[in-house]
Amino acid sequence: MLGNFTYCNPTKLYFGKDALEGLSEELPKYGKNVLLVYGGGSIKKNGIYEKVIEILKANSKNIYEDAGVMPNPTSDKLAEGVTRAKEANADLILAVGGGSVCDYAKAVSVSVNCNDDPWEKYFIRFEEPSCEIIPVGCVLTMVGTGSEMNGGSVITNRVQKLKIGHVFGEEVFPKFSILNPEFTFTLPKYQMISGIYDIMSHILEQYFSGTDDNTSDYISEGLLRSLIHSTEKALENPSDYEARSNIMWTATWALNTLVAKGKTTDWMVHMLGQSVGAHTDATHGMTLSAVSLPYYRYILPYGLKKFARYAVNVWGVKYEGKTDRQIAEEGLSVMENWMKKTGLVMNITELGATETMLDGMVKSTLIMDGGYKVLSEADVRNILKASY
Amino acid sequence: MLGNFTYCNPTKLYFGKDALEGLSEELPKYGKNVLLVYGGGSIKKNGIYEKVIEILKANSKNIYEDAGVMPNPTSDKLAEGVTRAKEANADLILAVGGGSVCDYAKAVSVSVNCNDDPWEKYFIRFEEPSCEIIPVGCVLTMVGTGSEMNGGSVITNRVQKLKIGHVFGEEVFPKFSILNPEFTFTLPKYQMISGIYDIMSHILEQYFSGTDDNTSDYISEGLLRSLIHSTEKALENPSDYEARSNIMWTATWALNTLVAKGKTTDWMVHMLGQSVGAHTDATHGMTLSAVSLPYYRYILPYGLKKFARYAVNVWGVKYEGKTDRQIAEEGLSVMENWMKKTGLVMNITELGATETMLDGMVKSTLIMDGGYKVLSEADVRNILKASY
Repeated sequence: MLGNFTYCNPTKLYFGKDALEGLSEELPKYGKNVLLVYGGGSIKKNGIYEKVIEILKANSKNIYEDAGVMPNPTSDKLAEGVTRAKEANADLILAVGGGSVCDYAKAVSVSVNCNDDPWEKYFIRFEEPSCEIIPVGCVLTMVGTGSEMNGGSVITNRVQKLKIGHVFGEEVFPKFSILNPEFTFTLPKYQMISGIYDIMSHILEQYFSGTDDNTSDYISEGLLRSLIHSTEKALENPSDYEARSNIMWTATWALNTLVAKGKTTDWMVHMLGQSVGAHTDATHGMTLSAVSLPYYRYILPYGLKKFARYAVNVWGVKYEGKTDRQIAEEGLSVMENWMKKTGLVMNITELGATETMLDGMVKSTLIMDGGYKVLSEADVRNILKASY
Repeated sequence: MLGNFTYCNPTKLYFGKDALEGLSEELPKYGKNVLLVYGGGSIKKNGIYEKVIEILKANSKNIYEDAGVMPNPTSDKLAEGVTRAKEANADLILAVGGGSVCDYAKAVSVSVNCNDDPWEKYFIRFEEPSCEIIPVGCVLTMVGTGSEMNGGSVITNRVQKLKIGHVFGEEVFPKFSILNPEFTFTLPKYQMISGIYDIMSHILEQYFSGTDDNTSDYISEGLLRSLIHSTEKALENPSDYEARSNIMWTATWALNTLVAKGKTTDWMVHMLGQSVGAHTDATHGMTLSAVSLPYYRYILPYGLKKFARYAVNVWGVKYEGKTDRQIAEEGLSVMENWMKKTGLVMNITELGATETMLDGMVKSTLIMDGGYKVLSEADVRNILKASY
């Protein structure tokens, strides 16, 4: 376990078929005014909206609504949310939806009492909140981002064509999250597998970093094996409770700081994917799947031992009589076949990326330094070109 | 992930070579009076005592001491600790030591303001605290019990020959724990490997339970593989920082509620081991290692598929052309060889158990119902007999 670090994750999780009962336990801890934040309205079709409203009313809350949070929440929408939260004098922001809704709720929570422009302060200058933060709770309806138990918040500026994530500290983590796997059953397959690849990428981007061989790597391998196993079961039967519950639980632990401990962490797949997302508005997980293999094949020589270990421990590649290089490449091939079988998007063309977007995407890709190779702008261009 | 459950683990961990600096961050949050709890005085030899005192003084704390906590802390010592904490009017109990010291500090913390007899209330009647709880912080010097990030507290009543653990809720978890792997370097080998087997047993007793195949099982396999790998490195070189830090981190995650999620959990090895411990006063981890294989071989037919999976995923047993039974038994054989090589005690005779103790040990073994077979008293007797 490299370096010095702290671990503190105060979010309370309520998990299972009756998880929504946890909302009644949590609500009395907060004031009267609840800002209910949600997306395009699918929660009104599947009955979750009604259930949540009923519990809020039973707890005598004043309910204010902020609907229409889009899949890649924008800085304009954030400004609107801040206005609504102020009007409501919100004591609690209750996010009901997927990762975008949770991310957005956190962004609003640190912006309501902030006099600065939140996009500039948090997503350009990466400053920390110095104002009072409104508590956030989540009712999760889509799985993938891990936003239900971390301080992450990704916001897109459409004018600047930038999609940027800020990882806030524990004071911004949701106070509680409600995780009912059944709430995810009605999700379209495209959304489900997109979320699954988001989970996989979160684990891999922490795993493929650093030079040491620590407990976090072993936990990551366990999470990956569980994810692969349960994905296959969920594809056969999307209502397989065990499979969907395992995927939901894996998503939370893939990005709640645990498997980053002792690691430098990479995050270049997210940086590349987010740049593609900012230009195409494509679904997050699919932007990651489309750039992953071009990226991993590009950096493979710089992390050969780890890619070979990955092939053996995660994908069951037999290593007898093979070089590390052969084992590592075979691992990525097995992964590629699995991704295709799962139905993931394997190139950015399919996501709407055109040749003319390349320069812009190269420019808006943030370059991180925790992985096996610090990319140059030329490297970024090569990887994105290979992703078409 | 079976059933409904909540997850909340509020303990803040400071990990690494500079972890003790975290104490200065934490102390200002508490009042003036600190009750410093420790064991037989090894912390005075290795310099940790002095460092802690210095930080307490720099934070202008009034320091009260409660030394002499024994490896299996007794109900009599607990009564003494309560008196000392009252005299000190303690605002914080700071445990500096291994799991016994942390366990003891938690027991004192829930007993100071309790008018009832704590042994009777918490360890016989298993009641929850209804009084004000004194906050606890830990500086860990020995690895194994996981007490630094959970609500567990094991107390021994020497007169009644009972060693009983109470798993308290999150309000009793340490507020913070300081985990510096270097603090464990000077530990004698016997103590180190005893702690290592305690960790292994914690993971196994959660893993070998329930009928489902969930994410917790995969995380457990990862933790076990990390533990086996790092143990081998630590035996070669006890000052291998990476190995010792991995072992320390694994210990915390082996028993901080995570890998129990979705599981029924067994705990019969601990019940058998604690009974042996109550009669012999032997080192905790060694009592577990001595009864483990007789227990696992006894219940193997009732959890055959899981024992076979364990053999393959944790011990690398090749499964081609073998029956589940053969695979499972081979797994336990490989484990046995590893345990012997590691230097673990493999029978209770070596721990001081005599024939005349058998009846008493059978009687004081609590029978749990979360494993693959609910034992009868006759089963307990058979397993203990096979452990001599």
